[in-house]
Order: sequence, then C-alpha cells, then structure tokens
Amino acid sequence: MVETLTSKDVRSVIEDQIEELARRNKEPEWMTRIRYKGLEAFEKAPLNDPVIDEEQLLQFIAKPEVEGLPEHIESLDDLPPEMRALLDRLGISEVEQKYIAGLAVQTDTGVIYNQFIREWAKRGLIVLPMEEALKKYPEVIKEHFLRLFNAGESKLTAYHTAVWNGGIFLYVKEGLKVPFPLHLFFLIQESSLAQAPHIIIIAGPNSQVHLIEGCTAPILVRHSLHLDMTEAYLHKGAKVQLTVLQNWPEYVHTRPMTRAMVGEEARFINTTVSLGSGKSNVANPKYWVAENGYVELNGIILGQKDWYVDLGGEMSLKGRGARGINASKAVIMDESKVITRGKIVAEARGTKGHISCDALLMSDKAVMETYPGLVSRVDDAELSHEAAIGRIREEELFYLMSRGLSEEKATQLIVKGFLEPMLKDIPVEFLVEIRKIIELAVTGGM
Amino acid sequence: MVETLTSKDVRSVIEDQIEELARRNKEPEWMTRIRYKGLEAFEKAPLNDPVIDEEQLLQFIAKPEVEGLPEHIESLDDLPPEMRALLDRLGISEVEQKYIAGLAVQTDTGVIYNQFIREWAKRGLIVLPMEEALKKYPEVIKEHFLRLFNAGESKLTAYHTAVWNGGIFLYVKEGLKVPFPLHLFFLIQESSLAQAPHIIIIAGPNSQVHLIEGCTAPILVRHSLHLDMTEAYLHKGAKVQLTVLQNWPEYVHTRPMTRAMVGEEARFINTTVSLGSGKSNVANPKYWVAENGYVELNGIILGQKDWYVDLGGEMSLKGRGARGINASKAVIMDESKVITRGKIVAEARGTKGHISCDALLMSDKAVMETYPGLVSRVDDAELSHEAAIGRIREEELFYLMSRGLSEEKATQLIVKGFLEPMLKDIPVEFLVEIRKIIELAVTGGM
Repeated sequence: MVETLTSKDVRSVIEDQIEELARRNKEPEWMTRIRYKGLEAFEKAPLNDPVIDEEQLLQFIAKPEVEGLPEHIESLDDLPPEMRALLDRLGISEVEQKYIAGLAVQTDTGVIYNQFIREWAKRGLIVLPMEEALKKYPEVIKEHFLRLFNAGESKLTAYHTAVWNGGIFLYVKEGLKVPFPLHLFFLIQESSLAQAPHIIIIAGPNSQVHLIEGCTAPILVRHSLHLDMTEAYLHKGAKVQLTVLQNWPEYVHTRPMTRAMVGEEARFINTTVSLGSGKSNVANPKYWVAENGYVELNGIILGQKDWYVDLGGEMSLKGRGARGINASKAVIMDESKVITRGKIVAEARGTKGHISCDALLMSDKAVMETYPGLVSRVDDAELSHEAAIGRIREEELFYLMSRGLSEEKATQLIVKGFLEPMLKDIPVEFLVEIRKIIELAVTGGM
Repeated sequence: MVETLTSKDVRSVIEDQIEELARRNKEPEWMTRIRYKGLEAFEKAPLNDPVIDEEQLLQFIAKPEVEGLPEHIESLDDLPPEMRALLDRLGISEVEQKYIAGLAVQTDTGVIYNQFIREWAKRGLIVLPMEEALKKYPEVIKEHFLRLFNAGESKLTAYHTAVWNGGIFLYVKEGLKVPFPLHLFFLIQESSLAQAPHIIIIAGPNSQVHLIEGCTAPILVRHSLHLDMTEAYLHKGAKVQLTVLQNWPEYVHTRPMTRAMVGEEARFINTTVSLGSGKSNVANPKYWVAENGYVELNGIILGQKDWYVDLGGEMSLKGRGARGINASKAVIMDESKVITRGKIVAEARGTKGHISCDALLMSDKAVMETYPGLVSRVDDAELSHEAAIGRIREEELFYLMSRGLSEEKATQLIVKGFLEPMLKDIPVEFLVEIRKIIELAVTGGM
C-alpha cells in the first residue's frame, strides 16, 4: 500500500459501489440519496480505527450478489454446502425441526431466508431482507434508517451508509411474543469483501423477540470486513434479546455498530460471544434507556493469536429508574490484545448501573486493558464497577492436578468455570459448540 | 479575552519573565538555557488543559520576589502576618516546638526556610531553596532537573520549564532516617501570579523522609496559578512520604505535576487532601516502580461550588514484584465536577495493582466521572479496580436521626465516616483542622 489515494480516487471507489448497489437492488431513489450522503460525509469524517487505515478500508468492496443462491430456504437442503457445514458445526442440524423456523442467512451481500417466516407476518412478525423491506415498507424504513447514527461520525459509519448491503428488517407487533428464536447467519465467502448489513429492529409495545446472529467464514485468501449496523427501537414494555455468536476466522475484521433506544419499562439483553472474533473487532455501541428501562450487555471474549479486540459501549440512563449492566469476561491467549471500555452515564434520578470486567491472561505476551467509565449527573444514582485481571491461580491448578487431572484438563476446567456464569442466556444448542471451541482454544494455547 | 496573541506576543511574554528571573536569581547560564528550551517548546506543545486556554495561561506571570521577607525563619515571629494566620489555622503554632524544625515557606515566588535545617546538613539532610541549590550543587541539579518530564509534552510543562520559580531541593543521605516531618508551605498573595515551584527529592538508599506541603492563599482579586513540578528519585530501599494539603481558595488554579522513579524495594506514599482545591485542579502524575518497589496514592477530594477537579495518575510496574495502590474518596457538593483517572500498567511478572474510587454525591448538580485503567502485559500480574458512586443512604441518615442527631449532624457524621479510612497517614496535628473544614463544608452545602 505505497500509493496514496487522491480524494478523486476515493470518490470513484465509493461511487462505483453505490451505483452498482442501486442498480442491482432497484432501490428507491431516496435510499440512493442516503448512500450519497455517506459518500459526501466520508472525506471529512474522522477514521477512529486503531487497525484499519483509509486505504485498507476502501479495499473492502461490496460485491454483487453471489449467483446460484436459492431465494428462500424451505429446509437445510436448500443451503449452499459451506453454510450447511457451518450450521452443522453450530449444532443446528440436530434441532432443525425447531429452529429452521426463523432462519435468515446473509452470504456475502445477499440475504436468503425462510419462507415459513412469511406466514407469521399475518400475526404481526415481519422479517424481511432490508432490500425488500425498502420496497414494502418505505415509510417505516425512512423513519428508522440511520436515526441512531450520523453518517459523518466516522469513516466507518460513512462507508457503511454508502455501501450497506443486506441485513434484515425485523418488526414485532404490539403484544406479540415470538415463541421461537430467530436466527440470522452471516457468512463471508469472498476475499476483500465489505459485508455491510443494515439491521433495523422495531419491537412494539409489550412485544417479545429473541434474535440470534451467527457469523463465520471459511479460510479466505485475503482479509474481508464485516461492517454491520444495527438500530433497535424498543417500545414501552418490549423485551428484545440479541445474541451474537462471532466465530470469524482471523481473516475478517469486524466492526459491529449496535445502538438501541430502550423505551419505558423495556428490556434489551445483548450477549456477544467472541470466540473467533477475527483479526480485529472494534465496537462503539450506544444505548439510551428511558424510565424504568433495562439494558444488559454481556461479553464473552476469547482472544487468540495476534487478534485485537476493542469493545466499547456507552449507556445513557435517561429516564428515572433506568438500569444498566455491562459485564465482560475475557480469556486472552498467545499475543492477543483485548481492550474493554464500558461507560455508564446516569442522567436521571434513581438510576443504577454496574460495569464489571474479569480477564484471565494465559500467556506472557497477551495484553489486557480495561477502561470502564462512570459518570453521574444526579445525586441519587448508584453506579459501580469492578475488574480483576490475573492468571489461573497455581493453587487451583495444583488442587485439580492432585485429584488426578492432567494440567491441560485442569486448565480447561478452570477456564470453563470462569466463563460459565456469562453463558446463562445462550440457547442450549449453541452451548455444546461454544464449550468445544473454548476447550480446543485453551488446549492449543498451552 | 477577545484579542488573540500572535506568536511574537507569546514569545515576548515568556522571554520577559525568563530574563527577569535569570537576572534576579543570578542563575547559572545552563539553567537559563533550559528556560529557553521551555520557551522554544511552548508554541508546538499541545495545551491538554480542560479549563485554562493559552491566553489565560500567559496572563499568569512569575512576579519578582516580594520585598520585606526575612531570609531565614528562627521562630514564628519572623513570618509575615498572613503566613502566621495560615499556620495558626493549620494548628502549627501549638506544636511549634516540634515542627518548626523543618519549615520552608514559599510566598508567591520566594522561598524562606528555617536555619535549623542547615545544621542537619552535616548529618546528610539538605533542604535548600531551588535557586540556592543551583549554585551549591549544580552537578546534582543538572542531572535531575527535568529528567522525568519533557518540556514539550504540554504547554503547562513548557511554561513551567521557562518560568519556574522557587521550590526546594531535598536530599537525604544513604541510611539517614529523618525523625521529623519537613513542612513546605505555599502561599499565594498576589493576583495573576504564576507560582511555579520546582521540587527535586533525592532519597538515598535506605533513607527515610516525610515531606508535608500545605497550600493556601488569602482571597485574591483575580485568579492565580499554582504550577508546581515535583521530581522524586527514590534509591534502593528508600521510603518517602509526601503529604499534600491543598486548601486553595476558589481563585487559584492548580496543576500539580508529580513524578517519581521508585527504586528497588523503595516505598513512595503520596497522600493528597484536596479540601479547597481551587477553581480547578488537574494533575497527570507518573510513577515508575522497580523490583519489589511500592507506590501508594491516596486522594481525598472535597468538591464545592463550581470547582473542577481532574486527577489522573499512571503507575508503571516495571520490576518484578512491584506493587501499586491508587485509592480515592470524593465528597462532591453544589455544582462541582470531579473526575478521577488512575491507571496501572503491569509490565513485569508478579506485580500487583489496585485502583479504587468511591464518591458521595451531595447535590443534584454535582458530577462525578471515574475512568480507571488497567493494562497487563504479563500473564501473572494481579490487577483489579472497584468503584462506587452514590449518595448517602436514607436508611443510614434516618437511623442516626432516630438516635437524636439533627439531619446536619447525621450527614456530617456519615461524610466523616466515609473519608476517615483515607486519613490514616495524616499527621494528627492536621487532622483536627481537616475534620473541621469537612464539617463546615458539608454544613454549608446542605
């Protein structure tokens, strides 16, 4: 990367993608105008990325949809082989009957999804590829698209705005409690890809839904970028669970941008399991919590090789009695570096917040940094944080080894015991796979 | 402050002060060259100050020494009346016999000190005004002056380098354990003053010394700036205690810049009591800790009115077994804003660090922010932090009131109970005064 891009080059790299996406998706003109706003914002926007520079960013391109994908999934047989292998690994095939129900898959930049979901539309559950939602519900999308972000706040938000592709629109009608979790899978098959799905979640008053996102890719020739943006709107009393299982290989940079407006008495529970979080994983989510609302962020991070993980997150407790919890546990191996920066701002009376971060360092070259932030602007908020960084205690190890376990087994057991309390909200069919990945990683890292 | 300074103006404001200081102190030429390095660094250096802008900074001027000061103090009668009133308030006169022993006083920019201390020079204790030390021990000062700071790291360090005035050189010979605490008082009498003392502490192997700094000023017409820089060098096994009692009125900005090299098995204990910390108090100290060394930073902060307090501090645990503790307790009233940002970096095996921050918010307009940072670069460090921000619990208050205390008395008792554990290292003669100031503040703030 010796040559430098002129601003004319930058413009044409982005403009070519915009034109291609607009043409391919036959999207409404107002959306193409939003894309051009992203392009206009790109040049002046700050980069704010510790890993990817501007030239690298522009090498990740939103590719045209891969050919040969089925339009809808009726059964697992409709999926491409790589996808089926992934689902097998995640234990999905075993519970197909139950879970295939809510399956949408984004491979590279195209989304395929389950016909079954369409039938639920009559009861008030809408799950549509974003490109399709644009045409069917233009007013709703117009109102909610890019409302929680500004295109110009960073080059990443600007780039996403310009070249977003795929993603889904999830709408749950007032009072509807969706009885099965919805699955959304992201698969990256191409190198130098900018997979930039845009996800809008609208949970009506007193509705309930659980969305599970699984992410992976086969081994690629060159790096790719997963640059998703999720905007969630929880109306009064809604309950939304978002569980993200990141199992990206080390060839993928990921920048999950998640923000949520959490209404009165609503509950948003976001659990991220970063097992293979890719080459680098940087996030700066934001949550605004209204009266008596509740946000819980759980992070389970496994750092391996030279991976770089930097997870931020700011919660603003804006309504009386709003509460927030930000908890993370990290196991860091090899030369991996993990940073956590949860922040809670208490802006209303009677609010409560807690940040915790625990890390186990498994190697002398692993690095952990934690920078929690607490801000109180009222006199009766209760904010607290706690953190502990250390290694496995030798007493513990020796105790287990004295009971006949090998050092490897003893280490596995301690690491699993360390992470286990964070896995309470993970559906059981994923737990088996998650535990296996952790076991393998810890053994390899010894 | 509508007019803007040109870089020529800036140059001449600083240059005039340098020439005046050099002339007045008849200082060696090499020191004037260091001052000019500060001037050269000033323009390009970042400002890094959330309160004072460049023009304000340059309105604080290092004044020529006040006339009529005695050259040495033999007894309290030798002091100017304002100084005596201050010492009375701090309870010094009652324990004069014991404590006048180690008294040095800096009023505005001139230092007067006790003749008695000179006699200890024979046993290896040197306490000299910095200007005098420059002439008597030029080689030692040359080696230690501005070794732990770079003139160009901020406009404040550059300005200090150019216009420093006063301060002391404290040297303790190998093995000497000084049996009495040394007192250093800073008194600001003039408006628009830049009081910028430079303090160098060298504690020889296995030596021991306790320096107590007291700071105050009468009510001034305009703001002044206290911009001290302290460089402490602790050799193997040395123990240095530095207790700073800040009782600045709200007309003083203070920027205490303290850094220490803590040698093998050395112990540095720094306790800061910010009762009246002035209009704004911003610090960015650094500590480097060698094998089995120990640093303890204790901060007691009382925020009142619209005061702004931002206390940082970074410890690098560089040697095996090094340990660091950074603990603060803040009581925040009125519209005051307090920020704490302790950071501990574990760079060697077997190191341990702990950060804690507790705050009581006494008003709905008071703001507390805390950003602790932990960084571990080795696998067997133990780092932890904890924080709690809240208000006085109503149960506690009601319990005490049910025992017959007024709400005011009950509040005072709870605040005192909250701060008390941090006051363990404060000499008893100051405790009475500190407790009285806290009581008055809490009552006034109700």
